[in-house]
Amino acid sequence: MHPQFEPSALQQAQKLAKGIAASPGAAAGRVVFTSDDAVEWAKRGERVILVRRMTSPDDIEGMNAAKGILTSEGGRTSHAAVVARSMGKTCVVGCRDIVIDYERKQFTVNGMVVREGDYISIDGTNGVVYLGDIPVVPSEIIRVITGEMKPEESELYRYYAEFMSWVDERRKLGVQANADKPEEAKLARLLGAEGIGLARTEHMFFAPERLPHFQRLILADDPKEREEAIAKILPFQREDFYGLLKEMDGLPVIIRLLDPPLHEFLPHTQEQARELAEKLGKPFEEVWAKSLRLHEHNPMLGHRGCRLGITFPEIYRMQVRAIMEAACQLKKEGYNPKPKIEIPLVGHANELLLTRKDAEEVAEQVIAEQGIRVDYLIGTMIEIPRACVTADQIAKFADFFSFGTNDLTQTTFGFSRDDVEGKFMAHYLEEIPGKEGTPILKASPFEVLDREGVGELMKICVQKARSVKPDLEIGICGEHGGEPTSVWFCHEIGLNYVSCSAFRVPVARLAAAQAAVREQKEAERKAARRRKVLVEVRD
Amino acid sequence: MHPQFEPSALQQAQKLAKGIAASPGAAAGRVVFTSDDAVEWAKRGERVILVRRMTSPDDIEGMNAAKGILTSEGGRTSHAAVVARSMGKTCVVGCRDIVIDYERKQFTVNGMVVREGDYISIDGTNGVVYLGDIPVVPSEIIRVITGEMKPEESELYRYYAEFMSWVDERRKLGVQANADKPEEAKLARLLGAEGIGLARTEHMFFAPERLPHFQRLILADDPKEREEAIAKILPFQREDFYGLLKEMDGLPVIIRLLDPPLHEFLPHTQEQARELAEKLGKPFEEVWAKSLRLHEHNPMLGHRGCRLGITFPEIYRMQVRAIMEAACQLKKEGYNPKPKIEIPLVGHANELLLTRKDAEEVAEQVIAEQGIRVDYLIGTMIEIPRACVTADQIAKFADFFSFGTNDLTQTTFGFSRDDVEGKFMAHYLEEIPGKEGTPILKASPFEVLDREGVGELMKICVQKARSVKPDLEIGICGEHGGEPTSVWFCHEIGLNYVSCSAFRVPVARLAAAQAAVREQKEAERKAARRRKVLVEVRD
Repeated sequence: MHPQFEPSALQQAQKLAKGIAASPGAAAGRVVFTSDDAVEWAKRGERVILVRRMTSPDDIEGMNAAKGILTSEGGRTSHAAVVARSMGKTCVVGCRDIVIDYERKQFTVNGMVVREGDYISIDGTNGVVYLGDIPVVPSEIIRVITGEMKPEESELYRYYAEFMSWVDERRKLGVQANADKPEEAKLARLLGAEGIGLARTEHMFFAPERLPHFQRLILADDPKEREEAIAKILPFQREDFYGLLKEMDGLPVIIRLLDPPLHEFLPHTQEQARELAEKLGKPFEEVWAKSLRLHEHNPMLGHRGCRLGITFPEIYRMQVRAIMEAACQLKKEGYNPKPKIEIPLVGHANELLLTRKDAEEVAEQVIAEQGIRVDYLIGTMIEIPRACVTADQIAKFADFFSFGTNDLTQTTFGFSRDDVEGKFMAHYLEEIPGKEGTPILKASPFEVLDREGVGELMKICVQKARSVKPDLEIGICGEHGGEPTSVWFCHEIGLNYVSCSAFRVPVARLAAAQAAVREQKEAERKAARRRKVLVEVRD
Repeated sequence: MHPQFEPSALQQAQKLAKGIAASPGAAAGRVVFTSDDAVEWAKRGERVILVRRMTSPDDIEGMNAAKGILTSEGGRTSHAAVVARSMGKTCVVGCRDIVIDYERKQFTVNGMVVREGDYISIDGTNGVVYLGDIPVVPSEIIRVITGEMKPEESELYRYYAEFMSWVDERRKLGVQANADKPEEAKLARLLGAEGIGLARTEHMFFAPERLPHFQRLILADDPKEREEAIAKILPFQREDFYGLLKEMDGLPVIIRLLDPPLHEFLPHTQEQARELAEKLGKPFEEVWAKSLRLHEHNPMLGHRGCRLGITFPEIYRMQVRAIMEAACQLKKEGYNPKPKIEIPLVGHANELLLTRKDAEEVAEQVIAEQGIRVDYLIGTMIEIPRACVTADQIAKFADFFSFGTNDLTQTTFGFSRDDVEGKFMAHYLEEIPGKEGTPILKASPFEVLDREGVGELMKICVQKARSVKPDLEIGICGEHGGEPTSVWFCHEIGLNYVSCSAFRVPVARLAAAQAAVREQKEAERKAARRRKVLVEVRD
């Protein structure tokens, strides 16, 4: 499915280093070290590879502009890896042999120096980094799907299409995609996604023309200033949601309201604070003091998700308004939008009750203003252990549940994925001869769903939730939704669908079919055993 | 139980501000702004109040030297508050009206400036901060218990003693104390503690004469250097454990092996790194690079607890050796030490199996070397949701469980206690008229155990663990062990004991008796109902 290096060119290529294969595909381009450079170089038509120690949410634009991403730190579930996979962008992470010097704009690897502008090529399927510009060829399947090639020109595609039709006949689990942008959604649909299981809205705030308004909102002193900032952001968000809902016309789209900690949007250095202060016309001291005050010791467990929506209700109200205005507009144009509003990080039923009431109020307001009814659902992401064990209470206020198994794995294990992968995960996966209890883990729980721990909480959740709402729709939108054995587990515990990045949709469809076949075979085996016993008894 | 301000002096005192009452008692002294100053001033006989924005583990010595602690940030479960309570030290936190200027060594409050060396007085019972040096009088009960006053001189003490003897007759739950030092343990015993439910070993590493050896251990390049550092630390630890076990002669003492993230022990600024590099005779670049590499995004969910013990097995081996050497020594001297070795942060049975085998090996080695047998137990703290849902597997390798409900509350809710209290907890506890779902929480789950979420996981844990080991001893050592309604819950789910800071031991004893009485009354009510039904049926 993914682009590859041209086999003949690859044979002569010089290997530089090997990292962790984080997002499959092949990419070649010129090295840049900042996201701003990536954006700028790409604008003038350069292919670039963004090289960073690790990435953060404000690298989104740069990652988007780059052909591929290479980091020296982090693991398969680091920010770079997760975002790259969701973008279907080639990515190699944790390439520890390369030592990056941001100041000199170069990296060294085994004594060799690679400078900004030099060509490198990275293979996200095996983690290898090469020197030079190796030609990349797209997969035939993708070329047919995107209309670049005709089906009759590709035998591979025809095999794929026939095979996938068998697969879809067998599977019971729905397969949706995680996608934030119309173009991602379009590809997901072409690859067979039956809806969007997760559209993250935070990436939308980092675009250069939007960020200052959002920063003003966070730093606002009074409600008036806050309202003004909100009014500036609303049209952008409406446009985002319009595009997404239009692309997925007739299919459900889960839009998750703002999730990350606020301080991610604020300056991290005094210099950045000075710049921002100037841009906003505010005193530097104030901007810096507020940024410091918003700093968190453990942002993963801090002021984020619905906790933000509850303390700054105007943010969620604006987002709900943008979703509903976009949906009403589409309905008027003859489309059939199916928005699902998702409240993240709920751990207590009251959090959902409170945010739900607010969202309903705004949605009904928009419907009344626009004079057209659009059906919408309000649900929540299940990503906190407390939500699992109190699922019967939370389900009362939810139209749907979606397991956020990335975060649920973090909180269930007490693992920060940004930290543990670089620090001790390798050690945990290692078998030490003669040592009982090793390997501690058979696979990283961020890659393969941990059935015994995270899975047990999911089972408790499904059972409790359906004890009060037997028909509650429950899906999964963590990275596990695209990992075959995890998909089998989702089938076993009775989920309705899995959702994963667009490029993994065909894999998920296949895994869902396997799960159904496995179940049927198991049932047949049981029936055969029963028949055998009956025969024996009769004899 | 706690010291108070002399009532007559209090009437004339000038009130400066009000913060959050974090650890009861009254304290007066001269203002200092650094832990080093606190230690130094105390050495020359000054009473000091340590004033900080917030405290961190390297403030332990300063907190210990101070009469009281005042912080401008943080809540009732911030580092300052939790440590102060465990030390029985007066503490006011989150006093947001005071603005600290570390450089000028002063703070301002409502336009007034208080400088280093000025006297202030703080009341940890109501959070009030006064200007000046208000005389403090100790509680009569404590004066009798510590031998400063005779029982016959204090009517209050005699009431207390008689009342507590009734209490102890009624209760079924054991009551132990969290104490790290012999003097804390002594007080705990005098207040009725039947053992130490939690002795943290990390505080022991921050003493100025010990820290450099530990830092050398962390920064060591080769096993030899590491061994040398270990050899330097071992005698200190042995001495610590000797004192603790001797003070608690004949009673069980749970010693938790090293828990916090390593980077807490390393420099946070280049200047500190330069100093440390000089002290250790290592290049600055190396020390700084390693400190940066050990930095974590979410230290609460990072490389800590048994994850450290597994990646650096020599640390836990040294600690186990120190415990067992101390215990053997005491046994030879005719004492009866009862050490219980506790592995923190276990989330997977293999973590415990691996560290247990290692600990057993070292313990048996020491017993063989010393030629004397000391019985010891090896157990684990339950503070990760995954440990609760896989408790049947973990119990196989544990001689005891102890619920670490502070961390379990953090991971179950996905709340970082260092962050949420200052950021949104107040909002969550607020009732908004007309808003359904408010207050979101009736009490802070860090103060009152959250029965529905954390408690549900505890129940699952107890049930699963005792399904494989019916007699497994299970206790609790989180702050909740000293909060009455939480103690009731511990009784209800069948725990064996609660453990809390020394000063809360009498409260816990009382709450345990209440729980037993409540249970008995409930049983009587049921029996009466049954009798009534029987009579009705008969008639």
